[in-house]
Amino acid sequence: MSAGGDIEALIDMMARLPGLGPRSARRAVLQMIRKKELLLTPLADLMHHVAATVRECATCGNIGAGQICDICASEKRATGEICVVEDVADLWAMERSAVFGGRYHVLGGTLSALDAVGPEELRIPKLVQRVTDERVTEVILALNATVDGQTTAHYIADQLEGRVRLTSLAQGVPIGGELDYLDDGTITAALRARKAF
Amino acid sequence: MSAGGDIEALIDMMARLPGLGPRSARRAVLQMIRKKELLLTPLADLMHHVAATVRECATCGNIGAGQICDICASEKRATGEICVVEDVADLWAMERSAVFGGRYHVLGGTLSALDAVGPEELRIPKLVQRVTDERVTEVILALNATVDGQTTAHYIADQLEGRVRLTSLAQGVPIGGELDYLDDGTITAALRARKAF
Ligand SMILES: [Zn+2]
Ligand SMILES: [Zn+2]
Repeated sequence: MSAGGDIEALIDMMARLPGLGPRSARRAVLQMIRKKELLLTPLADLMHHVAATVRECATCGNIGAGQICDICASEKRATGEICVVEDVADLWAMERSAVFGGRYHVLGGTLSALDAVGPEELRIPKLVQRVTDERVTEVILALNATVDGQTTAHYIADQLEGRVRLTSLAQGVPIGGELDYLDDGTITAALRARKAF
Repeated sequence: MSAGGDIEALIDMMARLPGLGPRSARRAVLQMIRKKELLLTPLADLMHHVAATVRECATCGNIGAGQICDICASEKRATGEICVVEDVADLWAMERSAVFGGRYHVLGGTLSALDAVGPEELRIPKLVQRVTDERVTEVILALNATVDGQTTAHYIADQLEGRVRLTSLAQGVPIGGELDYLDDGTITAALRARKAF
């Protein structure tokens, strides 16, 4: 490479980001160096700032800059509906479709015997508590249509059975599909046509 | 997005890097936030460090951490051969093939009447000067096989005519192809089979 050890190290680290390989990392780093004042320095500043301020919402697990995330803090969001998602990427995908006006609960993964992920690791007790505390009337299980996602949905449904209306995203989510890969229209259709779980 | 303004700003800026779109930028940013200590903070540190130290080599135009780049400073690199490339990505591509043991001259682009890029902007006078000062015997014109690349190669050949052996990369470079997209083997073959310009 002969680009100086620091530039090489930067390329190696960039190449570890999802969606970037060695080649695109090299191109990205060169572009940043070419636009040092416009790209490299502001990006580094922003990363330091985000690293210093980002945290998980104490209520829902979404990420934001405060103790409570923007969605949980917003008075415009309905309190009676909670949409349960696996991770923040799925929450963002739901938000882009702009069809859901309630609040979220981010599990941070799915139940997995193999990886020893139990209900405690997934904020499921916290979800059960919220259903009571926030007078929730509907929980939408917006988990991925994978085996682990559906296992997790069934487990949550068992915990909340009889205490709240349980629904899941319906038509439009393909078998084995993941929310974060769907277009906004598909998510909108799936949410509108949601059915009892 | 509702991810907090700073996270959104970081995603927007990452999405401006080559090879990344909005979706991969979102995934990259989430991954960095998940691995804050391992990825986000070290990446920001490294970017600041590179922004503070990176500079163009006063001799060849390559980037590095000093006044003179690692290649120009190395006593192991032959001084009699200069390989002329359009940009640093092309230099890196040449270096990955590890077949060239001489030095480089990075033009920083190609001549272009349309974009008002003349010889001065491309370090061509500096190249002519190096040919004399460094007792260069061969100049390899490793410019992209595009119209502008070849126009630039001919212009440089005119300037150096009769003063040095002029060669160009030969077989293996496809018509309209760009060095940075070629595999290492193709570059090796093209350099080995270089022909008089
Ligand atoms: Zn929240
Ligand atoms: Zn140099």
